[in-house]
Amino acid sequence: MTFPVVGMIGGGQLARMTHEAGIPLGIRFKLLSDTPQDSAAQVVSEVVIGDYRDLETLRAFARGCDVITFDHEHVPTDHLRALEADGIPVRPGPDALVHAQDKGVMRAKLTEIGVPCPRHRIVTDPADVAAFAAEGDGFPVVLKTVRGGYDGKGVWVVDGPEDAADPFRAGVQVLAEEKVDYVRELAANVVRSPHGQAVAYPVVESQQVNGVCDTVIAPAPGLDETLALKAEEMALRIAKELGVVGHLAVELFQTQDGRILVNELAMRPHNSGHWTQDGAITSQFANHVRAVLDLPLGDPRPRAPWTVMVNVLGGDYPDMYSAYLHCMARDPQLKIHMYGKDVKPGRKVGHVNTYGDNLDDALERARHAAGYLRGTITE
Amino acid sequence: MTFPVVGMIGGGQLARMTHEAGIPLGIRFKLLSDTPQDSAAQVVSEVVIGDYRDLETLRAFARGCDVITFDHEHVPTDHLRALEADGIPVRPGPDALVHAQDKGVMRAKLTEIGVPCPRHRIVTDPADVAAFAAEGDGFPVVLKTVRGGYDGKGVWVVDGPEDAADPFRAGVQVLAEEKVDYVRELAANVVRSPHGQAVAYPVVESQQVNGVCDTVIAPAPGLDETLALKAEEMALRIAKELGVVGHLAVELFQTQDGRILVNELAMRPHNSGHWTQDGAITSQFANHVRAVLDLPLGDPRPRAPWTVMVNVLGGDYPDMYSAYLHCMARDPQLKIHMYGKDVKPGRKVGHVNTYGDNLDDALERARHAAGYLRGTITE
Repeated sequence: MTFPVVGMIGGGQLARMTHEAGIPLGIRFKLLSDTPQDSAAQVVSEVVIGDYRDLETLRAFARGCDVITFDHEHVPTDHLRALEADGIPVRPGPDALVHAQDKGVMRAKLTEIGVPCPRHRIVTDPADVAAFAAEGDGFPVVLKTVRGGYDGKGVWVVDGPEDAADPFRAGVQVLAEEKVDYVRELAANVVRSPHGQAVAYPVVESQQVNGVCDTVIAPAPGLDETLALKAEEMALRIAKELGVVGHLAVELFQTQDGRILVNELAMRPHNSGHWTQDGAITSQFANHVRAVLDLPLGDPRPRAPWTVMVNVLGGDYPDMYSAYLHCMARDPQLKIHMYGKDVKPGRKVGHVNTYGDNLDDALERARHAAGYLRGTITE
Repeated sequence: MTFPVVGMIGGGQLARMTHEAGIPLGIRFKLLSDTPQDSAAQVVSEVVIGDYRDLETLRAFARGCDVITFDHEHVPTDHLRALEADGIPVRPGPDALVHAQDKGVMRAKLTEIGVPCPRHRIVTDPADVAAFAAEGDGFPVVLKTVRGGYDGKGVWVVDGPEDAADPFRAGVQVLAEEKVDYVRELAANVVRSPHGQAVAYPVVESQQVNGVCDTVIAPAPGLDETLALKAEEMALRIAKELGVVGHLAVELFQTQDGRILVNELAMRPHNSGHWTQDGAITSQFANHVRAVLDLPLGDPRPRAPWTVMVNVLGGDYPDMYSAYLHCMARDPQLKIHMYGKDVKPGRKVGHVNTYGDNLDDALERARHAAGYLRGTITE
């Protein structure tokens, strides 16, 4: 056996950081990217430019790879089945990945295996949304397109049937869910390999701003140990039951009455796991690579009592590099992770990690740096 | 100011790991490499294949770069001066770098600024070697070609004038040095930026086998605090006096009578600093990039009480990837760093890092993994 070639479909920041984590393993990393300017394409040697929706493009790309994995969940399921039929290991495989592609399939499966979810059903039109509301506690109701949504896109919170027309215009199925009265959002991240080994990272708190992840705190502050264990076990069970290979992020609601409900699944490295780059013994990216290669997984335990990740969104000020001078001089322990993307308002262009013994201090340092890079803090 | 382009000359593992460390900074990294198969060329997007000894090749490469730095010390000094005359920042600059290129110049300068070195002088032939020996404690004497040596190459330990012919055959100047009666070898690693900021890593112990670095322990066990501080100050002073920009490794002899003498200098990331990838808050590679870009430097302090690095040399068994299964399953905290090189007996093809509270445990884990990867341990 020689060193294998990992093929990653999608040239975003997750592929960029997976490549970074794969370099020490001595493996070869091949990328299928939309454009040469994509985040990962800037830093990878072997890049194929092509459309992941085209089967022949995928087939040609896959021929040079020992295993295929993903930066995103958008590759059509049938294409993945075709690659598998060609004899290429696809990890996670199409039967697992569909649960991260289609929220309707995901809800049905989780309900079948007894994992607690918000009340939900597929709805057909605004009148059906009203009926769904009436079956529970009424409006507001959350509507989601079953495919294609992310970072708050494809999600609507509606206060009545008169607000419910938009989601149906996309021409895809719409899932209605109760609006959960949650205390906070958590994420349970696990990694599973084909031979069934799995590891669980500490459960984290994930703070969203306008539907986009803003801050992640590891571990989730003040989380009851029993509940943390329950969340980890739930994520491990989902990974096993769905046959996930690689990193699985389970986004959770923690409710007022002490329950945890599954919000979303992602089967790839995930924003809620970026803290592991500097805060865990083995990062989610390194463990994702190890999992898709069926190598033994690395230790997921934290290296510091607290690690904080804050996303850097684009602001009005396009020059983030100049901000390095202030940020690095102010905090020599700061970990900056930029994605090589052009700055556009609201776009995720990077993140920062801080860690230490004191949570308030780590939070302050990470928020200051992210704000200064964005341009919302200028002193 | 936009994100800059760092150009690195040389495609070895130091360039590979510098690229890895530069990815999070969002900078662009360009490589001048001898072949597309070189260690770094396998993982970098922007690679120019060319000969670093050719000035026009260097000039064409440098035109796309904001700063030039190095994987090795072999670029001719005059070429570097020409690049500087073209207006390209070269870091470290030729006036500093010459001290890492020419051991005669290095010894003269260190002696001039009062840094303790082994007794030494340039010798002209075997009879002159005998004279040098007679001026001190006699044979053995160490002979070194002033240029071109590394990893024990270009170094001879001679027991009498009859053994002293070989070094003079290379046609370059030969430096004679007393054979120091040392207890152990240490390394003091520092990083300095153009505006004069400098940081010092903890002084490490470096264990050599057949003239090649085998094991590095950070910090050096049992090293007297006063002596450690003296070594750090000496390295910082050398960096300043020689005008070094970037990483400087100062290899040291610790003598029986409690002195420290400078053995060698390297002005680039160095084998004695590989432990920092997993053992320090900021790695030598990240700090080298920050220094050559004149960004504020990162915190050099250790993250664990002990970190151990052991080099992986090629053995008789060419398939190191299969050995990952055992090594990763045995030690989920093990950090493997492979360079993408073909395995040849005695060739440095990677290293492993371990860290923890217990030095014996970290040493055992690192040595076991390196031995298993090499094939000298099979159970």
